[in-house]
Amino acid sequence: MNEGVEWALHSCLNLAWIGGERAVTAARLAAYHDLPAAYLNKQLQALVRAGVLGSVSGPKGGFRLARPLDRITLMDVVAAIEGPEEAFRCTEIRAQGPGAAPNSLTPAVECAIAGAMGRAELAWRRELAARTLDDVRRQAERQAPDAPDRIRRWFAPT
Amino acid sequence: MNEGVEWALHSCLNLAWIGGERAVTAARLAAYHDLPAAYLNKQLQALVRAGVLGSVSGPKGGFRLARPLDRITLMDVVAAIEGPEEAFRCTEIRAQGPGAAPNSLTPAVECAIAGAMGRAELAWRRELAARTLDDVRRQAERQAPDAPDRIRRWFAPT
Repeated sequence: MNEGVEWALHSCLNLAWIGGERAVTAARLAAYHDLPAAYLNKQLQALVRAGVLGSVSGPKGGFRLARPLDRITLMDVVAAIEGPEEAFRCTEIRAQGPGAAPNSLTPAVECAIAGAMGRAELAWRRELAARTLDDVRRQAERQAPDAPDRIRRWFAPT
Repeated sequence: MNEGVEWALHSCLNLAWIGGERAVTAARLAAYHDLPAAYLNKQLQALVRAGVLGSVSGPKGGFRLARPLDRITLMDVVAAIEGPEEAFRCTEIRAQGPGAAPNSLTPAVECAIAGAMGRAELAWRRELAARTLDDVRRQAERQAPDAPDRIRRWFAPT
């Protein structure tokens, strides 16, 4: 999985702690965790396309959450960064070469391997979809109660 | 996910249908599904290192199952090809830059994001570990009852 997923998740949490209405630039979000700004910007743009973030133009522009954390799931962020494709991509090799099944032109019959791999992936997606970023924020605040204040101070407008 | 996972899974099933004791070369297994032999050979070697396949040297050499399909799980094959790393790799960006938490030197406190992503991945691994290749074989035979015979004929020693 793309490391951009980790960056995107942290950035969403940081934006929530900074405060809902303020837009923050990719450069500033990147600096906070010492990340390459141009690459983080790419991830943030993907979150905008997925409707997770909004972007604001102008001198006070940047990124902010498009909706509250309790309406953003881990799945939303993973799908925004990784794309909608399944991790296991069946390329239908059973329909290639001498091994091609005579019924290979009836794609209605799903390959048993693809089916089994797909069910496992569904279990993963279900877990990701069941967990909101607000669940994660609460857990993070239990572990580091001073984090929100520290973040707000660092990002305070100068 | 590496397309080698699909190839490895099909090859294991094909080896079971061909028959337990016979060793088959990578070139022959590759030809059956029109796959690049050198690259399939790499995947098969990974399955040998993982103890899923055995390799036999000599003129009648090649690969064969190291144990019955009901003792090989989807997880065994995925781990052999993809490696043991989690798909989501936490790089601990929370410990980088000005955002570094003061307690960043106490790695005992797992990042809430890594924890949530890890739980989802665990659900995926559990599904993969709960499904044996024999479950998949039975499903495949229900869908294509003629497949085992077709495979045995094509791979019959000449």
